[in-house]
Amino acid sequence: MEKLSVAILGATGAVGQRFIQLLDNHPWFRVDEVIGSNRSAGKTYAEAVNWVLDGEPPQRVAELTIKGLDDTFNSPLVFSALPKEPAKEREMQLAGAGHVVCTNASAHRMVEDVPLVLPEVNADHIQLIDIQRRNRGWTTGALVANSNCTTMPVIMALKPLLQFGVRKLHMVSEQAISGAGYPGVASLDILGNVVPYVSGDEHKMETETRRMLGTLDDDVVNWIDIVAGATCTRVPVVDGHLVNISVELEAQPEISEIIQAWEQFRGQAPIPELPSAPEFPVKYLKEIDRPQIRRDKNTGKGMTTSIGRLRPCPILGYKFAALSHNTIRGAAGCSILNAELLSASGYIQQFNPMLEN
Amino acid sequence: MEKLSVAILGATGAVGQRFIQLLDNHPWFRVDEVIGSNRSAGKTYAEAVNWVLDGEPPQRVAELTIKGLDDTFNSPLVFSALPKEPAKEREMQLAGAGHVVCTNASAHRMVEDVPLVLPEVNADHIQLIDIQRRNRGWTTGALVANSNCTTMPVIMALKPLLQFGVRKLHMVSEQAISGAGYPGVASLDILGNVVPYVSGDEHKMETETRRMLGTLDDDVVNWIDIVAGATCTRVPVVDGHLVNISVELEAQPEISEIIQAWEQFRGQAPIPELPSAPEFPVKYLKEIDRPQIRRDKNTGKGMTTSIGRLRPCPILGYKFAALSHNTIRGAAGCSILNAELLSASGYIQQFNPMLEN
Amino acid sequence: MEKLSVAILGATGAVGQRFIQLLDNHPWFRVDEVIGSNRSAGKTYAEAVNWVLDGEPPQRVAELTIKGLDDTFNSPLVFSALPKEPAKEREMQLAGAGHVVCTNASAHRMVEDVPLVLPEVNADHIQLIDIQRRNRGWTTGALVANSNCTTMPVIMALKPLLQFGVRKLHMVSEQAISGAGYPGVASLDILGNVVPYVSGDEHKMETETRRMLGTLDDDVVNWIDIVAGATCTRVPVVDGHLVNISVELEAQPEISEIIQAWEQFRGQAPIPELPSAPEFPVKYLKEIDRPQIRRDKNTGKGMTTSIGRLRPCPILGYKFAALSHNTIRGAAGCSILNAELLSASGYIQQFNPMLEN
Amino acid sequence: MEKLSVAILGATGAVGQRFIQLLDNHPWFRVDEVIGSNRSAGKTYAEAVNWVLDGEPPQRVAELTIKGLDDTFNSPLVFSALPKEPAKEREMQLAGAGHVVCTNASAHRMVEDVPLVLPEVNADHIQLIDIQRRNRGWTTGALVANSNCTTMPVIMALKPLLQFGVRKLHMVSEQAISGAGYPGVASLDILGNVVPYVSGDEHKMETETRRMLGTLDDDVVNWIDIVAGATCTRVPVVDGHLVNISVELEAQPEISEIIQAWEQFRGQAPIPELPSAPEFPVKYLKEIDRPQIRRDKNTGKGMTTSIGRLRPCPILGYKFAALSHNTIRGAAGCSILNAELLSASGYIQQFNPMLEN
Repeated sequence: MEKLSVAILGATGAVGQRFIQLLDNHPWFRVDEVIGSNRSAGKTYAEAVNWVLDGEPPQRVAELTIKGLDDTFNSPLVFSALPKEPAKEREMQLAGAGHVVCTNASAHRMVEDVPLVLPEVNADHIQLIDIQRRNRGWTTGALVANSNCTTMPVIMALKPLLQFGVRKLHMVSEQAISGAGYPGVASLDILGNVVPYVSGDEHKMETETRRMLGTLDDDVVNWIDIVAGATCTRVPVVDGHLVNISVELEAQPEISEIIQAWEQFRGQAPIPELPSAPEFPVKYLKEIDRPQIRRDKNTGKGMTTSIGRLRPCPILGYKFAALSHNTIRGAAGCSILNAELLSASGYIQQFNPMLEN
Repeated sequence: MEKLSVAILGATGAVGQRFIQLLDNHPWFRVDEVIGSNRSAGKTYAEAVNWVLDGEPPQRVAELTIKGLDDTFNSPLVFSALPKEPAKEREMQLAGAGHVVCTNASAHRMVEDVPLVLPEVNADHIQLIDIQRRNRGWTTGALVANSNCTTMPVIMALKPLLQFGVRKLHMVSEQAISGAGYPGVASLDILGNVVPYVSGDEHKMETETRRMLGTLDDDVVNWIDIVAGATCTRVPVVDGHLVNISVELEAQPEISEIIQAWEQFRGQAPIPELPSAPEFPVKYLKEIDRPQIRRDKNTGKGMTTSIGRLRPCPILGYKFAALSHNTIRGAAGCSILNAELLSASGYIQQFNPMLEN
Repeated sequence: MEKLSVAILGATGAVGQRFIQLLDNHPWFRVDEVIGSNRSAGKTYAEAVNWVLDGEPPQRVAELTIKGLDDTFNSPLVFSALPKEPAKEREMQLAGAGHVVCTNASAHRMVEDVPLVLPEVNADHIQLIDIQRRNRGWTTGALVANSNCTTMPVIMALKPLLQFGVRKLHMVSEQAISGAGYPGVASLDILGNVVPYVSGDEHKMETETRRMLGTLDDDVVNWIDIVAGATCTRVPVVDGHLVNISVELEAQPEISEIIQAWEQFRGQAPIPELPSAPEFPVKYLKEIDRPQIRRDKNTGKGMTTSIGRLRPCPILGYKFAALSHNTIRGAAGCSILNAELLSASGYIQQFNPMLEN
Repeated sequence: MEKLSVAILGATGAVGQRFIQLLDNHPWFRVDEVIGSNRSAGKTYAEAVNWVLDGEPPQRVAELTIKGLDDTFNSPLVFSALPKEPAKEREMQLAGAGHVVCTNASAHRMVEDVPLVLPEVNADHIQLIDIQRRNRGWTTGALVANSNCTTMPVIMALKPLLQFGVRKLHMVSEQAISGAGYPGVASLDILGNVVPYVSGDEHKMETETRRMLGTLDDDVVNWIDIVAGATCTRVPVVDGHLVNISVELEAQPEISEIIQAWEQFRGQAPIPELPSAPEFPVKYLKEIDRPQIRRDKNTGKGMTTSIGRLRPCPILGYKFAALSHNTIRGAAGCSILNAELLSASGYIQQFNPMLEN
């Protein structure tokens, strides 16, 4: 099988690096183009990047020459790790020029015809692409977003509970520094410290959750009717976001029923067959002191959400903790899984590796 | 003025060390006796202690000879930093033998005639000592406890809000390692990690809060009627417990009224005159990213509770963060303030420095 | 190929856990027996272990029943993660009973007929087994040790420099907490701290280095004649030991010659073919701020030593930094590589997977 | 006594903040002018500063209006926390305009007629001011520098050893993040990490040490003849630099003689009477695992250098560890002590509080 050429927008940033690391030896996709700032353009990736992940960039990508943000390029599939502001205009342009753009940026998450997708949760929302193409006169292009990294473990944990009638949702996060990119959080601000505020994330958790758990009816996503409140805090760990969740469930299920719902939860076909899909989207840990950020963030190669401590909450009825790797499942890994879903669903022209097989 | 001799029970442990540090050069009290395990008895304090605080133990105390837990001693005032189990029997014995015992242990916090006191919050509860003495046939002895270190910032923040009718209370803590004593938390368990569980603390936060905010009527404390739920987590910081609090207030006050209530909050006379009382029991910080554990734990020499981020909560109406130094105000410092209150209130025989002045 | 049964001594400790993690899906060896304290005997591994590594123990091992330290067992190959004291007697007994014992314990590292081996450095020292068997009347049994975890990166970096005549060696380490096992270092002792002392390690670095770089002549290892001094410090990181090394080289080579020596360094046949051998035993990083503990410890799956910052030293001529993963290459991973070398060299009776292939 | 008005250059930066914190309630000096960037000019200090130290800025200074870097001002004494580049021109201008400038910047440390002073070590070097004024035609102005923060503990520890003939010096530092200012080190670069490189510091340690331990002869400082080599590393702690030092001493004193030299070391009159001078410039700790960064950095209010682990070094004869608070004694605190020395020595016109007393 001929791999599909992909381009990375914002390739030298922290999320861009994670895209490149996760796509190394990907069975379907091959990074052929790296797009950076106009200042980096013309340098090799190795020269331009300040690699902040472990080890060193993959050799193949290290030798690629960086293109500027306004340069044209050929890859049918584009992963965007752009900051919000440059993403606003450029992502739409590229989708309009025929590229399928899977973005981690927040710029278009709330645009009505842009699907905001986490495959196991709302794969059907990708049908918004048909609306999108019709609305905008696009043929091969598309723009698909994934959620904020702290929202991710919440919607993953709640999806299997929708059957019980989720009414109210109280969230307190403990978030890693890598969510803020590079240089991001100054070490003087976080070493030996906890900061009870993360700019912008509380609003995203309250709104993205409701859109992603909503239903696609009549070509539009109807947000789910949940009263949601979030508090976001920053803690001195590198990767992994933990959220302490209290939830009100109309059906008042037994604790064991909830755990069973999590254990039985799987993405619908073809999701379990996608290369980046974990065996289990969520995993319930029965030890009383789990999930722990350092020990559980890499479960399922960073694509599984770990849940634990389910117990009664005197206020809302139920409470538990949910944890995900914020730059894998919560960012680049989710964009890649979205692109795999789009490929397998026929949204990338002339490329469907699951048909070929 | 002749200083009062005091003894420290559990003097070589982490909380015992904090007692000794805070009592160095205390204007009323002087550490004359240090009580350790029977294994340490006979050694000098300097020989026996593995000093885990900054710097070194005060020279005067370093030269004291340690007495065993079962030895007799003379100090009228005793501070107890014993673990729960040895505290159960020994503290009652000592009170029965005529000592005034101010304990940080949890062993007797829920005993009906033992006052559980944070001076600015419920100084009047010390009147339980009269009941206690009558019940038990004691004359000069007494036993007074202070709260769990994570409960402390909560009751301090809630006391000024009682006027608005506190109905429901949701708490998520982020706690320092020093709360677990020494050796306490293994570094392999907490470096670069968050642990979503702290044994025993959730129950203490839910019950101690209700007892301490209750009213003393007819010689008994009537617990306040608040529905309270707590989640306790451990974070990699040395000192300082932060609690994310959501609260339902019947009167639905304006945000500004709540802040004003905190700003005007003071302990009743004679508390502001006590040597260890901070100028402000609580301090509201208006910066959006405060209180922070590292930067705000030492406010008021570790005796002030810092509060911030008051804002609407979609679930309970109001939410905010509260922070205290867990081994100063949350442990040894509170016991000392309690002892100062007892002195000034005539509960320590023949010792009332405020009368002398 | 039928895999060889192996037993893990001290299976529930931190190093024991690393053995089990690294041997999961090993192509030659299969963990069939786990030996713990007599207190753990009879429980399943899952029940007895407090798993301190990431994730959870492998399912196969989790279900094994733990044997007590004094129980007999059958596996021809034994990996020992025992503490020094119990190792002293038990390891010799087991070798005497016919087991090949690869130990990470320090108990026998300096015994004359016990080879202290790091394959790429001194594979020929395994010939001491012949002496050992002759001395002790053993036929199938053997005892082989690997070095202290902080010594490891030093000898790995020095081996390729022996051609230049190493005369003097000055070492200052910055060591992770996992080197001390579990519970090991108390978090109160290391969070936000550096401790300028690691018990026992300085002596090991000064002596093990000289024995392992020595030559096997006339059935005995002649220690190399290097004047070596070490300072060991502990830093707040989880895994990875970095050593700042200054060295005097008689031949006074060019910087580029030294780098070339490292880049060309390989273990001798059959080492590069062993399953746990990394592609490169050492890797020189040219970035001025590498190797870094967090980013470079996992190079070569934790089996490669990363080196950087080679430059003139005004005192000894040359200086550089060397880094290894202390519980992989510096402990369990090295024992496993030693066992692979013994297998391939015919020292494990009726088991030589390289002949079979 | 009327306090002397002082101005802080670079008042909003991390070192500038430390100046303001340390000068709060200073018995001789009062901060009347705060100089920031031209961008900050006109704002109050509270508005302009991102306070990175604990707590909040002192109320008096919080209300001062910031002046721009090129504005004129009146304070006779100026503390400079400027970065190197802006310091180059501006500090000389201000000294030329009649201000006494005590700078923490590195810009002029190697200028022949600028004294580089640590009072207990080389107070006599302030006589260079006479040369400086003669050379440059200044009357009341002067420029005095203090050393790099990592050099500081080294010269403090070595000064009492000069009597033994210091010949060679090998240094490996473990440095806190605050040495890099704010935002300084990105948290992604240092959390759970050690970085074996600190830009610029190795050269400063090798040269400043030799100048400051040199002798003032014939109006010039003759550098001491020591062969010095430094390696600088960064560790994840907030404040406090520890240096592992090996030293060759010609006289080959006993260990006890060296400890005695440290214990007897005092600054010459009038230094012990200066308000910021610690009781002991250096303190030898006999515990085997001290000095520790977190526990010992604040000794003597952060002005004492803690030393420990003196023992034989196989390479150079002696080795030990020395630790100082890098932003107090290693930066702002040292500049303030220098200014106190200048005051008491008559170098600040019409201001000598020690005469008045």
